[in-house]
Amino acid sequence: MSAPRRRNSRGPRASGPQPVAQAPFGQRRRPYAPVEVISADQVEAIHQAALTLLSTTGFRVLAEQARALYASAGAEIDGPTVRLDPGLIGERLATVPATFTLAARDPAHDLTVGGDLCVYASVGGPAYVMDNDRGRRDGTFEEMCDYLRLVQVLNVIHQEGGCPFEPMDLPANTRHLDIYRAQITLLSKNWQTQTLGHLRTMDGIEMAAIALGTTPEAMAERPALLGVINTNSPLQLDIPMAEGLIAMASHGQPVAITPFTLAGAMAPVTVAGALVQQHAEALAGIVLTQIVRPGTPVLYGGFTSNVDMRSGSPAFGTPEYIKAAQATGQLARHIGVPFRSSNVNAANEVDAQSAYESMFSLWGALMGGAHLLEHGAGWMHGGLTASFEKLILDAEMLQMMDAYYEPLDTSPEALALDAIAEAGPGGHFFGTAHTMERYATAFHTPLVSNWDNHPLWLEKGSVDARTRANTVWKQLLATYEQPPLEEDRAEALDAFVARRTEEGGAPLN
Amino acid sequence: MSAPRRRNSRGPRASGPQPVAQAPFGQRRRPYAPVEVISADQVEAIHQAALTLLSTTGFRVLAEQARALYASAGAEIDGPTVRLDPGLIGERLATVPATFTLAARDPAHDLTVGGDLCVYASVGGPAYVMDNDRGRRDGTFEEMCDYLRLVQVLNVIHQEGGCPFEPMDLPANTRHLDIYRAQITLLSKNWQTQTLGHLRTMDGIEMAAIALGTTPEAMAERPALLGVINTNSPLQLDIPMAEGLIAMASHGQPVAITPFTLAGAMAPVTVAGALVQQHAEALAGIVLTQIVRPGTPVLYGGFTSNVDMRSGSPAFGTPEYIKAAQATGQLARHIGVPFRSSNVNAANEVDAQSAYESMFSLWGALMGGAHLLEHGAGWMHGGLTASFEKLILDAEMLQMMDAYYEPLDTSPEALALDAIAEAGPGGHFFGTAHTMERYATAFHTPLVSNWDNHPLWLEKGSVDARTRANTVWKQLLATYEQPPLEEDRAEALDAFVARRTEEGGAPLN
Repeated sequence: MSAPRRRNSRGPRASGPQPVAQAPFGQRRRPYAPVEVISADQVEAIHQAALTLLSTTGFRVLAEQARALYASAGAEIDGPTVRLDPGLIGERLATVPATFTLAARDPAHDLTVGGDLCVYASVGGPAYVMDNDRGRRDGTFEEMCDYLRLVQVLNVIHQEGGCPFEPMDLPANTRHLDIYRAQITLLSKNWQTQTLGHLRTMDGIEMAAIALGTTPEAMAERPALLGVINTNSPLQLDIPMAEGLIAMASHGQPVAITPFTLAGAMAPVTVAGALVQQHAEALAGIVLTQIVRPGTPVLYGGFTSNVDMRSGSPAFGTPEYIKAAQATGQLARHIGVPFRSSNVNAANEVDAQSAYESMFSLWGALMGGAHLLEHGAGWMHGGLTASFEKLILDAEMLQMMDAYYEPLDTSPEALALDAIAEAGPGGHFFGTAHTMERYATAFHTPLVSNWDNHPLWLEKGSVDARTRANTVWKQLLATYEQPPLEEDRAEALDAFVARRTEEGGAPLN
Repeated sequence: MSAPRRRNSRGPRASGPQPVAQAPFGQRRRPYAPVEVISADQVEAIHQAALTLLSTTGFRVLAEQARALYASAGAEIDGPTVRLDPGLIGERLATVPATFTLAARDPAHDLTVGGDLCVYASVGGPAYVMDNDRGRRDGTFEEMCDYLRLVQVLNVIHQEGGCPFEPMDLPANTRHLDIYRAQITLLSKNWQTQTLGHLRTMDGIEMAAIALGTTPEAMAERPALLGVINTNSPLQLDIPMAEGLIAMASHGQPVAITPFTLAGAMAPVTVAGALVQQHAEALAGIVLTQIVRPGTPVLYGGFTSNVDMRSGSPAFGTPEYIKAAQATGQLARHIGVPFRSSNVNAANEVDAQSAYESMFSLWGALMGGAHLLEHGAGWMHGGLTASFEKLILDAEMLQMMDAYYEPLDTSPEALALDAIAEAGPGGHFFGTAHTMERYATAFHTPLVSNWDNHPLWLEKGSVDARTRANTVWKQLLATYEQPPLEEDRAEALDAFVARRTEEGGAPLN
């Protein structure tokens, strides 16, 4: 499988596809204080309970190398179990950077993690793909490349989220190499890598270094790659994840330590209990990154949700999820670690449920102070499927949040006393100078929302949001232009992929 | 048209309709601080600009009776224009109650307006009705009664919102009498009345008094009826609305003074300018209620949104709407008046757009500190249509917000250290005692959300949220039981309606 080729030019713009209105690329500052759902005392209670858990029950670490690292820092090792005392944890938390940057291939796409800024990442990790035209199915490499092209074109998405769905037409052992090359060549944005095992992680680091014209060692001073490390809840870190964590941290690349604490299944049925366990697992992982390389960037990932107790199915975008997300933001700020959350839903169709669960999640995450929004656009089926239409609808919601963040201008001109006096009682504002000077940019312009009156909407064919999103992604895909990559880097990437493929890639045991 | 009859019993429960899970009736306390989108200085700047507007440009009042009332309080009258100085406004704001109660026919349904509580009202005012089965159409009285039955059955709805849609099969002059009687007899919940003109308003007050076994005069000490007063933006109060305001206030019944300040049309194109105008109009109306009857309950209604500048169509659930709603909450708290907001959207179908716009509005309103949520469930088409399916989906979203409000329990039992130790690293929580004791009530139970895995969902027929909502409202309607009304009150109501119908009702000029 060779690198995705540049698409042919589509001729002059005038006869080309319909332009789709978008706000320009860029992270927007959240000007509002994060919502706090628990008191400072409650934050402290959860934190202390997690510390107790780590010093008594402890954390099971399956990789010997990881246990040795914990031991070197003074942890108590008892067979596979690692116990961490509060002093050791506090010491290691002290070296976590509050803020860091992520370099992109195009410096205009460099990102900041921390403060009042959030990185919106596209969906990562699903097994399947779906669209209106063909429903849910196994994905192919070519379709995955189209999805990446849309991630590049959608300005509101800051970062590619680590492969939208598995290209099942490629062999499992070498698939990651083709995916990384596609992420690098099709995008000029920052991208997330895979962290399952040492080889797969190192391949990502080496290819990212090639793409930036640097070396894995030099890249440590300039993080460019982000990965997610899931603990195996409850209270366990497996070998592939430990290897991924160590490889990333030892090269100064950030990971988001994300326990998957589903209340009622892999965590206690109470949200507070699930948060205690999440916090303990996150602390254990964060501490390990700082043992590997003090000062290496790391995030605290919150993914606590609940199961449907009638069926055992995971539920997302629930009230418990939102509360847990915002409480996690408080816990992350308490320990001074940047916070990762997600835009999630458990709907089966790109319908009203998918939208209200997503919008609820978005508020929970963003107004909870998230610094990284994983699965920001495209996630369906509780994470099993990436949807082309949901990608567009989520991009719309993200644009709405960004517009909500624009500070309200209360300058004398904006307060408009003269304009109101000019219109006068019973007048109107359509034609006033105040309106004419501002109307083109006064309001958020939607990607896909339709505000036609009902008769006009019927006349235009009664097209619902899901169907409009299908049109929009096709229009956007038609506008994609592949960002140029230096010829020598492209050749070095191809050579790297060829060599590693020849070697057999990264076998999954 | 006679009073709606009690439906026949549907036989024993065992063979009856499927029960639909609902949380019990009751207002939930919002335990989180409201979101603040502007600074205290910005609140003051908008407030001062509104005061300037009212003392210079002034407010046009078309009803002579209203102008006389303003004059009696010391306002400057200049033809139809009323100018209010800041001192007069401050003096009148001082008598507005921060909190009040609303009596319902069933005291278990009494409501509190103010503090950390919110009243969720159903949709009120649309011209049309829609459902999946027959699309949008003119409504009938019988359909309107079914809608009211659902409002009664849905526990999360605290208050009927003032007639869900016009029953077009009834004559315009007497329609309000049949509507009021249906609101009274089909519901035991509090209901909203119509305030267009003196007669229509007095009919509501008199019928509410009959229903509660009291008199209009005595009801002044025990508010039971709420109405909305819309100013005619910009800066005007027309005769019917002034009459409605005066009738309500003189009987101690609360109104929500709600300017319809659509930025770019009836208000400046800047959100801050629209808020200045909204605030001025709201202040003028609030002041009038206190002149009529000092201490009468009143709400500050925020309804600032924006038009789509490409088409001139009103847009709802936009970022501008949310920001304006939360800023209005701050302005209302600044002047010490309870705050009314709404759950709105401008979608044409009960699709993803309708859901994300609604969920966005809900967050804006509720986390903006609203005390009354108008159009809490069922509003479509920018307020032109009431939807049976949207009623259910909005009820779901309201239940989600209520569940989000449940304070996180961080008692030692909830922190679950023992349960986590019991499950242990790599264990699970499905069968633990901690889970078994709590699982039945641990999480929000949805009305309509579906969390089946995708293959099961396909097997069950790929039913989307809009279609499930259709099933749910039919199931709920089948469970409706008409709340009993004392025979003498029912007879008095019938006699009142008969007399007023004979008299010709309330002609619209």
